[in-house]
Amino acid sequence: MEARNLWRFVLLLALVLLLTWLHLPSLPNSKFHSRWYIPKNTFYSSSPTYHHLESETPQHPLDPLTIQEFNRVRTILSSHPLFKSSSSYTLNSVVLEEPDKKLVLKWKKGDPPLPRKASVVAVVKRVSHVLTVDLETGHVTSHENETDLVSGYPMVTLEDQFGVLEAPLRCPEFNNSFTKRGVNLADLVCLALSSGWYEKPEEENRRLMKVQCYSKEGTVNFYMKPIEGVTALVDIDRKEVVAVSDDGQNIPVASGANTDYRYSIQKLSGEMRLLNPISLEQPKGPSFSVDGHMVKWANWEFHLRPDPRAGIIISQVKVRDPDTSMLRNVMYKGFVSELFVPYMDPTEGWYFRTYMDAGEYGLQSKPLNPLNDCPRNAHYMDGVFASYDGTPYLQPNMICIFESYAGDIAWRHAECPITGLKVTEARPKVTLVVRMAAALGNYDYIMDWEFQTDGLIRAEVSEENSILILHILV
Amino acid sequence: MEARNLWRFVLLLALVLLLTWLHLPSLPNSKFHSRWYIPKNTFYSSSPTYHHLESETPQHPLDPLTIQEFNRVRTILSSHPLFKSSSSYTLNSVVLEEPDKKLVLKWKKGDPPLPRKASVVAVVKRVSHVLTVDLETGHVTSHENETDLVSGYPMVTLEDQFGVLEAPLRCPEFNNSFTKRGVNLADLVCLALSSGWYEKPEEENRRLMKVQCYSKEGTVNFYMKPIEGVTALVDIDRKEVVAVSDDGQNIPVASGANTDYRYSIQKLSGEMRLLNPISLEQPKGPSFSVDGHMVKWANWEFHLRPDPRAGIIISQVKVRDPDTSMLRNVMYKGFVSELFVPYMDPTEGWYFRTYMDAGEYGLQSKPLNPLNDCPRNAHYMDGVFASYDGTPYLQPNMICIFESYAGDIAWRHAECPITGLKVTEARPKVTLVVRMAAALGNYDYIMDWEFQTDGLIRAEVSEENSILILHILV
Repeated sequence: MEARNLWRFVLLLALVLLLTWLHLPSLPNSKFHSRWYIPKNTFYSSSPTYHHLESETPQHPLDPLTIQEFNRVRTILSSHPLFKSSSSYTLNSVVLEEPDKKLVLKWKKGDPPLPRKASVVAVVKRVSHVLTVDLETGHVTSHENETDLVSGYPMVTLEDQFGVLEAPLRCPEFNNSFTKRGVNLADLVCLALSSGWYEKPEEENRRLMKVQCYSKEGTVNFYMKPIEGVTALVDIDRKEVVAVSDDGQNIPVASGANTDYRYSIQKLSGEMRLLNPISLEQPKGPSFSVDGHMVKWANWEFHLRPDPRAGIIISQVKVRDPDTSMLRNVMYKGFVSELFVPYMDPTEGWYFRTYMDAGEYGLQSKPLNPLNDCPRNAHYMDGVFASYDGTPYLQPNMICIFESYAGDIAWRHAECPITGLKVTEARPKVTLVVRMAAALGNYDYIMDWEFQTDGLIRAEVSEENSILILHILV
Repeated sequence: MEARNLWRFVLLLALVLLLTWLHLPSLPNSKFHSRWYIPKNTFYSSSPTYHHLESETPQHPLDPLTIQEFNRVRTILSSHPLFKSSSSYTLNSVVLEEPDKKLVLKWKKGDPPLPRKASVVAVVKRVSHVLTVDLETGHVTSHENETDLVSGYPMVTLEDQFGVLEAPLRCPEFNNSFTKRGVNLADLVCLALSSGWYEKPEEENRRLMKVQCYSKEGTVNFYMKPIEGVTALVDIDRKEVVAVSDDGQNIPVASGANTDYRYSIQKLSGEMRLLNPISLEQPKGPSFSVDGHMVKWANWEFHLRPDPRAGIIISQVKVRDPDTSMLRNVMYKGFVSELFVPYMDPTEGWYFRTYMDAGEYGLQSKPLNPLNDCPRNAHYMDGVFASYDGTPYLQPNMICIFESYAGDIAWRHAECPITGLKVTEARPKVTLVVRMAAALGNYDYIMDWEFQTDGLIRAEVSEENSILILHILV
């Protein structure tokens, strides 16, 4: 071959190569998007970086507090007399205080931002306080404590829960209940349970939790090995054991055999076929857009923000009217107000289990697991919340947004042959899903907001782990 | 560049090119699989070829009749005295007569085939006959006619329906009902409706249908322009008008404005966003296998066959027991026995509308529309049925089989941080769906059999076009 022909060949090859690359699936825009789901444990070896969040500013009156705003709340409170006078306090909740609905409805993109305020629930010297912090003026503009207005107790923080476990595990009476059952104290896994409200004089006017322990001997599924009837009642703020109850001596601790649910442990015989990987393909990408906290998809627009108590708050939901092409307001604010889980068992170890999973613990979550919890092309939104001392922290990948398609048909019509009309119409059923998953003990709640092009909104909470299935439509 | 280096460059390019091609999505194995769904009319310009079906032989005792077997039934019947003596007859149903259940359960792959028989329902000289044709001996081994055993009338054939329309459209009284309403006869679209059973003496002992007409003036959605109250009662076998009823003179014919549902006609303004294409991706292909009419997926095995009346018949469903790894029989036979659609309107034009859509019309379908009716990677199964004279014909792409995944979670568990255990498990929810769609007038039924890995079978019939939604769990 002459050099000239060779060059032609090279050019031709390069052209084919170029065309080939152009037809390749688009490159993943995140390390999460490039992986196929693997139906087993997935750990992230390195944490993603979130530097962009540190400089984030609110773009909409309902946007959640930013890192800078959380820090400003902390600074303002640290110079406030209430907190100056106390060596220790807990901020149980720091969230956006929404502006007046009328102002929000009037506000349009490009308008000057509405004044930003934070709503704070704090416990100082065992007294609850509800504060409003004005981020512009720098002052605490509202101040109520429980002597003025008793309205219950704040949510427990993760630090509250850790703190509650310490005292009983130092208590000989409590530990003795386990050793006399033959349970090795090193195998104990204990949970802090909300203790309900039964108007008992010794339980009034104090924040209390009960501690229930399990044995993790031989299984990670310790929920299957409860140490029945042993509970410690603990004062959250004083970190003191109030009472120990041991009512289940005759109830054995289960062996835990065959209770490990981990995929890596399951012994699937050759006959139990494994499924090939599957996900959703969208060669032109998803059809929704996320601008800050505003989501637009098909005929829908809404504002979406993570919340430490409700998990997801959907606001200003609008749907486009097909007749006028105008957006219509259909829902100003939607969220899961509560998940009430009463067990209705009168025994000493169970009567108090009347969990308010949103209001007592908060529907926060560990990161969603891409391709397992949400399909390919999902958009992930992080949550930024305040820890007990007001320091902002990140809940990465807390919410995912994706288009769902199960291969189903939204609408179809084929004309029958005797009419002589050739009509074959079919519309695939595609919906938009906003999802989060909250793990509270052995409950894994999946919260989905699903939007259909026909104007339907489905809000569904499902419990996907053991014991029971809940479906709550709000 | 020297020639040697140039060659190296060419080789390198070729290598990159090869690797690039190797990573391309696998080539579609059918013309249907290569197209993205387009949410509008889809017509097939050329028919696929089905030569392989002509030589097909049954591989399982429950396999449907093959083309060769249909032809053998025709040959056997043509020399039978009943059909020899008549110049015209109709075969309203020719299907497999299933062998005895005990024999089927005993039969194993590799065993000699069980004797094959066909069950035939025929109308000869306006008398219904139920016959069993033994395909081995070549004889008609069972013979009942309605004087021996009256058990109702056979399903109407497409030819019956065409035939029913002819007589009324030649009837001046019937046509006059339309012209006096200002309806152009050229705009008429008429349907043959089953007439119910009301013990009227003049309707006894004959096969009857009623003809209802619509105007297609200005719209393909003629169902929105019924000519109310005008019906003709027609004898199917004699092709005679028995009676004409005109009871709705004061009911106007609707204009039909804005009733065209075709995607190509819809005026979607720029604000009504269109969705990007979406389907299911399975880079390693689907996890099910179809061998003849046997389907295997995950822990499931079953036999599947198209049926001209029930649409889909599922047989010998087995699920693998996770404890023993053995297959367990869970359902011998499953099908939609009937779809009863009573309108409950006592007026003259409506009282008789009490359709038995399976038993009167049969749940056959036009071809499923790939990527609209079923997702990518679906497997399509053809139906072979007998027309009114026994000639076999093809219903291509009548049933689809696919794995469904909507981005949902079958099960998950994340351990809470205070336990110290690092557990994050999630299993995507994947199911197997067997689907067909039957279009009967303005009703488009979608019949899904859905298999879940947890052992659940869902059988769902949904009506996806106008008027109403039916959900029937069988």
